[in-house]
Amino acid sequence: MRNLEKIEYQPISVREIVLEMKNLSELMIDLAYSAALFNDKELAEDVIELEKRIDRLALLLEIHIMVAARNPDDAEDLLAVSRIGSAADKISDAAADIAAIVVHNISVHPIVTEIFENVEERLIRAKVTKDSLIIEKRIRELDLAAKMGVDILAIGRNKDWIINPEDYEVIKEGDILIVRGSSLGTKRFKEITEKGQNSGVK
Amino acid sequence: MRNLEKIEYQPISVREIVLEMKNLSELMIDLAYSAALFNDKELAEDVIELEKRIDRLALLLEIHIMVAARNPDDAEDLLAVSRIGSAADKISDAAADIAAIVVHNISVHPIVTEIFENVEERLIRAKVTKDSLIIEKRIRELDLAAKMGVDILAIGRNKDWIINPEDYEVIKEGDILIVRGSSLGTKRFKEITEKGQNSGVK
Repeated sequence: MRNLEKIEYQPISVREIVLEMKNLSELMIDLAYSAALFNDKELAEDVIELEKRIDRLALLLEIHIMVAARNPDDAEDLLAVSRIGSAADKISDAAADIAAIVVHNISVHPIVTEIFENVEERLIRAKVTKDSLIIEKRIRELDLAAKMGVDILAIGRNKDWIINPEDYEVIKEGDILIVRGSSLGTKRFKEITEKGQNSGVK
Repeated sequence: MRNLEKIEYQPISVREIVLEMKNLSELMIDLAYSAALFNDKELAEDVIELEKRIDRLALLLEIHIMVAARNPDDAEDLLAVSRIGSAADKISDAAADIAAIVVHNISVHPIVTEIFENVEERLIRAKVTKDSLIIEKRIRELDLAAKMGVDILAIGRNKDWIINPEDYEVIKEGDILIVRGSSLGTKRFKEITEKGQNSGVK
């Protein structure tokens, strides 16, 4: 995954930027709702961090579109791309709005937190400790879907985010894993990911 | 599913409204991106129709919140609910923006339509014809996930939408099915759903 901390012209295609904005905006919506429903501040903070990333991508997209448009026909074609980028940005703003409710502790409890008690799937975040059972393993090896019905949606690593990580990705110490699954599955996943915290030194 | 065509006070809980707004807004984002990426006008029109439904739900939510708030403490608690409703509305607006690009035929082709050529999953819509192989069957019986790796996300019926239909739901003639799956799976699903169109009278 490319590091987009600096906003400067980089050899990344318009296609890649839009694809990443799409994936990020979808992830943020899921994360934001989960954060609100389970009153999960950490998840909410991740959403707000991802929002900054979308903002950078939006700016980068505009720069790329300007560079790519060489004549009025190009410009017209690229207008649709620009509008999709804007929509992704707007989606992420809404996700950040939801996250802000959670972070600023606007009393969410009485109704909101029980709204989704029957929702089967939820998103959680888990941090990989140095004693974690899954450290240095490839996602493929973990076979998470079959073993506990969970799916890794994103990995936060070194202030960067890998969205929809590939099967060959290796889990590292300190990774923040965003995982979707059943209540039971995500609980078990959190246990094996953060094992060191409960089981003491190996 | 409740018919929300008329905006009037109905005995539906705030909880149900927010849950439906969440599910609808998530569905709309998926639909809108799929519509843009595959230049699918029908899918885009569904998004715009769903946007009207979200607008009605948003209004209904505000009415319910006003009725529910009996004192300042209630009102404060309900503020967070109201803000989540607003965010869902904003998300749906963004989805409608994307859909409008497709409907109004703003030349989407050169870059956008090839953006997601490697995307494994896509959403399609299929209309159940009178000769369809799946007519009058329960979703459970179809065993779609196992048989063709697809999943029914929504059913449009009599100008109403059933989001995340239950397994016991029966497929009717004229239903609009919104389905997620692989390129191959969705193609096969469309064939069995619209079979009558190609195979003539039964």
